[in-house]
Amino acid sequence: MDEVERRAWAYVSRVAEPPNEQLAALVAGEGVVAAAERIRRGDVHDKLRKATEARRDLDCAAEDLEVLDRMGGRLLTDGDDEWPYLAFQAFRTVDRTKRPHALPPLVLWVLGPSRLSDIQDRSAAIVGTRAATNYGEYATADLTAGLVEKDVAVVSGGAYGIDGAAHRAALASDGETVAVLAAGLDVPYPAGHSALLHRVGKQGLLVSEYPPGTRPTRRQFLTRNRLVAALGKATVVVEAGIRSGAANTAGWADALGRIVCAVPGPITSSSSIGCHVLIRDRKAILVSRAAEVVELVGRIGEFAPEHERPVSDLDGLSDDELAVYEALPGRGTRSVEEIAVTAGKPATQVLGPLTMLNVRGLAIQENGCWKLAKR
Amino acid sequence: MDEVERRAWAYVSRVAEPPNEQLAALVAGEGVVAAAERIRRGDVHDKLRKATEARRDLDCAAEDLEVLDRMGGRLLTDGDDEWPYLAFQAFRTVDRTKRPHALPPLVLWVLGPSRLSDIQDRSAAIVGTRAATNYGEYATADLTAGLVEKDVAVVSGGAYGIDGAAHRAALASDGETVAVLAAGLDVPYPAGHSALLHRVGKQGLLVSEYPPGTRPTRRQFLTRNRLVAALGKATVVVEAGIRSGAANTAGWADALGRIVCAVPGPITSSSSIGCHVLIRDRKAILVSRAAEVVELVGRIGEFAPEHERPVSDLDGLSDDELAVYEALPGRGTRSVEEIAVTAGKPATQVLGPLTMLNVRGLAIQENGCWKLAKR
Repeated sequence: MDEVERRAWAYVSRVAEPPNEQLAALVAGEGVVAAAERIRRGDVHDKLRKATEARRDLDCAAEDLEVLDRMGGRLLTDGDDEWPYLAFQAFRTVDRTKRPHALPPLVLWVLGPSRLSDIQDRSAAIVGTRAATNYGEYATADLTAGLVEKDVAVVSGGAYGIDGAAHRAALASDGETVAVLAAGLDVPYPAGHSALLHRVGKQGLLVSEYPPGTRPTRRQFLTRNRLVAALGKATVVVEAGIRSGAANTAGWADALGRIVCAVPGPITSSSSIGCHVLIRDRKAILVSRAAEVVELVGRIGEFAPEHERPVSDLDGLSDDELAVYEALPGRGTRSVEEIAVTAGKPATQVLGPLTMLNVRGLAIQENGCWKLAKR
Repeated sequence: MDEVERRAWAYVSRVAEPPNEQLAALVAGEGVVAAAERIRRGDVHDKLRKATEARRDLDCAAEDLEVLDRMGGRLLTDGDDEWPYLAFQAFRTVDRTKRPHALPPLVLWVLGPSRLSDIQDRSAAIVGTRAATNYGEYATADLTAGLVEKDVAVVSGGAYGIDGAAHRAALASDGETVAVLAAGLDVPYPAGHSALLHRVGKQGLLVSEYPPGTRPTRRQFLTRNRLVAALGKATVVVEAGIRSGAANTAGWADALGRIVCAVPGPITSSSSIGCHVLIRDRKAILVSRAAEVVELVGRIGEFAPEHERPVSDLDGLSDDELAVYEALPGRGTRSVEEIAVTAGKPATQVLGPLTMLNVRGLAIQENGCWKLAKR
């Protein structure tokens, strides 16, 4: 990409609020340099002219790129090897009459050693409420550590609460983590996550659709959510209130044909209501262990192990043996006939089971009578 | 029912381990008095003779009935008005090659003012692990109180943990509650629930398939579970370990075509694993409020209300209004043109939204410029 092209990309990245369908079509049809030139002149169709009118004279592409270069970041477009084509393919399948913003980004501003093209193959988005509880943060850290251990990259939104817990846990386990921001790369938001986002930019990847200096807005948070959902092969909602941005990301994941998972929690916690509603309405699969997420995003055949079941000495006994075992006295001894009456079986059907129980060390014979073996 | 018949019922109730298909068929075909006589003589088919051989000479029917009468209890059979025909109909639909015990009881020994025939129309079984956590007991009490408030009877198994919490909460709210026992009515089991079961027998109903004096066995617990499942229009599992009797009851409920529900809990709690597995495998519906259970067991159209959603001043703003709202400065003021650039909209599309925001008390004009209203 030469400097003229780079500036044109930076210019179109700012001139209209992304995503913009007309802008994407113009760039695809005429190339980014010609497209930028036509927008600058106002020589575009009515709809795109309106969308670019307010900012078309505001050309700070050179400054934006200077900020990016100084940070050590890079500009990605769909010409790059690093562009996550596969992840963004999913936007083609969405019904745009229902979701007008279901478009891939035109330009991404990114910072960090991870590559989106690698991450798209093995990733999970972990999202949730800013009002996370201790339980939610613990569950997030536990799931994230388990995912990282299986080389799954963790995508989130950099926010307080669940998002932050996911990034922190991924960094702590030396895993890959991607923070998709609703602001420019140089605008640490929320301010309290400035150090955390700095570390994500050093060890993982910061991603933004917005040029440097852009402050976040509500609309940008919602638009950003579609990229979080697209970059995760599954989206896991750890905690969400009844009205939560995480539900929006889950909606995007569902629209994009991604798997949506939710972590249950106490029914007494308002921070779990959103998860419970998603599960109850069958919009999300209940997950309680990282292995269950790996099963969904990993290679074919990578199944979660069964929960460990406690074992008992009585495992494997037949119904007859169990009935006889139950008829053995706790104190004293019983004759075969007494055992038969208690067990409700003919005496002839009691001796065989007694012998088996004796072999397994569960029953003891004493003077022709039987009792439970002390264990 | 005359005394001869009553004794015959009591006799057949003890002579074979219930449920017994051949015994039920004989009683249905020849009447209970003739059936009892033939068993006593050993004049029955091979299979039934074996099943009754150990106890056929043990006739303690008169004593059993005396114990029952002294307690103030009654014997129920399918001749009685109080017999829950509808609830037990479901056994006909079960594949008995898979569940040989899928048979209604022949005789029920009951004690208490409630009537099973009334309860079957509006009931929920609440079951769970004996190793209940504080959370599980709280959730049980909360659900039960909500069910009682809507006149739903609560059926359970009288055990420690969730069962006990359900009975206690129902009694505390003056609701109807049924404890289906795996032992005789006069054998308080577990011993620590002796006072609780006594209260259930006074205010609700104790039910047992077993004659007085019968001690509980593992097999009886499992057989009992089918009656708990049959008597609840839905079965709610509140907490269950990975290996839990509650999962057995849930299996019966499912086989009987009843609705199975499970209450989620923290993923860190081993007492919730069983519930999470049921929900994840879609064998149970997630429930977190009594109203959601009432919706399933109640009258048609008795829907659970939506969760209350927090409201915001920004509810109902259009996208344009929201974008302009976001472009207003927190400190100082901005001109219409500045707001237009920040919002990425033509200046002509900014004035309308500003006026609306002003009307709603969200934006203030000052010397031709605009700022956020202090709230």
